[in-house]
Amino acid sequence: MAEEARTARQRLETALGRIVPADAGLEPAARARLDDLTKPRGSLGRLEDVAAALYVMAGGVTPLRVDPVQFFTVAADHGVAAEGVSAYAQDVTRQMVQNFLAGGAAVNVLCRTLGIGLRVVDAGCKGGAFPAHPVLTECRLGDGTANMATGPAMTEQACIAGLLAGMDLAAEAVAAGARCLGIGEMGIGNTTAASALFSAWLGLDPRQLTGPGTGLNGEGVRRKADVIARALSVNAGALRSGDPVSVLAALGGFEIAVMAGVVLGAAAARVPCLVDGFIAQSAYLAALKLCPAVRAYTFVAHASAEPGSAVLLPALEARPLLNLGMRLGEGTGAALAVPLLRAAAALFNDMATFSGTDVSGRLYAGGAPKGARP
Amino acid sequence: MAEEARTARQRLETALGRIVPADAGLEPAARARLDDLTKPRGSLGRLEDVAAALYVMAGGVTPLRVDPVQFFTVAADHGVAAEGVSAYAQDVTRQMVQNFLAGGAAVNVLCRTLGIGLRVVDAGCKGGAFPAHPVLTECRLGDGTANMATGPAMTEQACIAGLLAGMDLAAEAVAAGARCLGIGEMGIGNTTAASALFSAWLGLDPRQLTGPGTGLNGEGVRRKADVIARALSVNAGALRSGDPVSVLAALGGFEIAVMAGVVLGAAAARVPCLVDGFIAQSAYLAALKLCPAVRAYTFVAHASAEPGSAVLLPALEARPLLNLGMRLGEGTGAALAVPLLRAAAALFNDMATFSGTDVSGRLYAGGAPKGARP
Repeated sequence: MAEEARTARQRLETALGRIVPADAGLEPAARARLDDLTKPRGSLGRLEDVAAALYVMAGGVTPLRVDPVQFFTVAADHGVAAEGVSAYAQDVTRQMVQNFLAGGAAVNVLCRTLGIGLRVVDAGCKGGAFPAHPVLTECRLGDGTANMATGPAMTEQACIAGLLAGMDLAAEAVAAGARCLGIGEMGIGNTTAASALFSAWLGLDPRQLTGPGTGLNGEGVRRKADVIARALSVNAGALRSGDPVSVLAALGGFEIAVMAGVVLGAAAARVPCLVDGFIAQSAYLAALKLCPAVRAYTFVAHASAEPGSAVLLPALEARPLLNLGMRLGEGTGAALAVPLLRAAAALFNDMATFSGTDVSGRLYAGGAPKGARP
Repeated sequence: MAEEARTARQRLETALGRIVPADAGLEPAARARLDDLTKPRGSLGRLEDVAAALYVMAGGVTPLRVDPVQFFTVAADHGVAAEGVSAYAQDVTRQMVQNFLAGGAAVNVLCRTLGIGLRVVDAGCKGGAFPAHPVLTECRLGDGTANMATGPAMTEQACIAGLLAGMDLAAEAVAAGARCLGIGEMGIGNTTAASALFSAWLGLDPRQLTGPGTGLNGEGVRRKADVIARALSVNAGALRSGDPVSVLAALGGFEIAVMAGVVLGAAAARVPCLVDGFIAQSAYLAALKLCPAVRAYTFVAHASAEPGSAVLLPALEARPLLNLGMRLGEGTGAALAVPLLRAAAALFNDMATFSGTDVSGRLYAGGAPKGARP
């Protein structure tokens, strides 16, 4: 068992070793191109930052490409649900996976509308594997996690298996042509797991992070914060170790581990990964703890309406692209940011330039930036 | 002349009379549908508000439709540019129109990327009409406006002609199939005109509204605020009249009048109109002054990075969908909001429902909202 654990650790180390830090030295070339486009300098705001980031992560290869886009909605169950931390029954996770497979959930509609490929991943929903389905990938790490309020949510080996499975999903998608990935989730109980991870890694008070979610009353919120405090206490040894895998195994979820793996795998493949809301952001934080270089390959897509977001996002040093008051998960917020990445890439690639021969000589004869606001 | 003016006024009154106020009584039906979709209540945030607004403005006709989308980028010159209120020469307006026609500007790239039809409208650039071009509409109200710092920018008849031309553009687009319109602009000097309109109509101090734009230094900003103060003083009679046409004629621009007409025309045709940044928002305000019912048919697409936005948007009671630090105009911010409207319509139309027969009986057997976050 100890030997198996060592082998798993070695496999993870090897996989993480494939992540090449983005070369920030490429950014000036991106900015020079952006400043040569026929618009006042900086006037495209955040889209210029997105384009520069895409350029840097692509290693300076142009034209910038975002499509095809492949999303992963990862589902799993949480033992901590037994503590009554959710207003909803645990079998809702399974029912929602069936809704994803039937194509009727919000993330399905958004992916169809926005031209995004969607894969549904069962990382360990209670009740066993689902019948085979063309958009379903089974990578079950168990039949739901254990209750983190009474011990670690999963073994370190299960956690590593989840991380590696996510990295494999990303690698396979990129091998099949994807140039942008995205992550979202479903799992009753998983804001509790995410909040516990934020508390452990960012030193934030569980009471700051814990909100009513959908339907919890004040008493319910207090109970949820208490459950997180107990989980932090019971797993204090793992937390003290400072080892990201130990912390993620103690407090995380199967879907969180797999999503963290997708973030890591996107970085290894040098393609952008769009991170959805509160829970996906906990997976992003796990990936950051394992490999800080993932930051340059990741876009935090939207600010969740979950109250904890207000303290979380500054702590993550994340500036989400969208803030639409959403709190659904599934990848819905990340999906809405896809057109922004496409727009940034197209502007970078296709706009007329002040210097370029693609612009008629009669334009901008003075050489001054154009389209200027007075 | 007085007779002609009366006739113009009558034509405008007739056109405005075709705008049917949206029936807010339809909103509960929209909310009931949204609450029946397989997601926690309210969890799609602003997208639910957008969908409800689309439902109300469509008079409850479903499925909700946004496509085809038709944008208008309206350009004109401003006599006030002679006061040195812009860092750029006036001929940049004309050069940018040529860039729009050549397809190389930011708004061209965004419209191509996002599947939006684009029409370039010359409302009165200096230097006379442009050669005919398939995407160009000439509706010139003059060869640039007069200098509003020394008198009214245009006659009331020119202003009314611009409003009616914009309403016609909207009506023709909807007759040709469009189900969503959008407005953006180009015109050196036009933040000065927009700021003057905001000052006159919202009682805001020109110094609060006036920013560096692109390249003005502190001295330039002070001069710009002084020019606006002079324009307000010289045109005090028109402003005291409280008549929206008089105010718009005194301080506006040809492109602002035409854009206001498009906003009015969209409302008359009961289709949504996406309003771009700072200057387009002054056209929206003009339309609101002429017909408050346009509010229900309009989406303010993005918060401009122009410093005046921070005071302007609350005064307009506008909550922009996007805040990406953009300050380019042209319709670029409005274009980026199109996918959000499409997404809202598709979610409303296509998601599985708790009650509907399109959802398998095995889903949500308990009847509780699903996809719930704990």
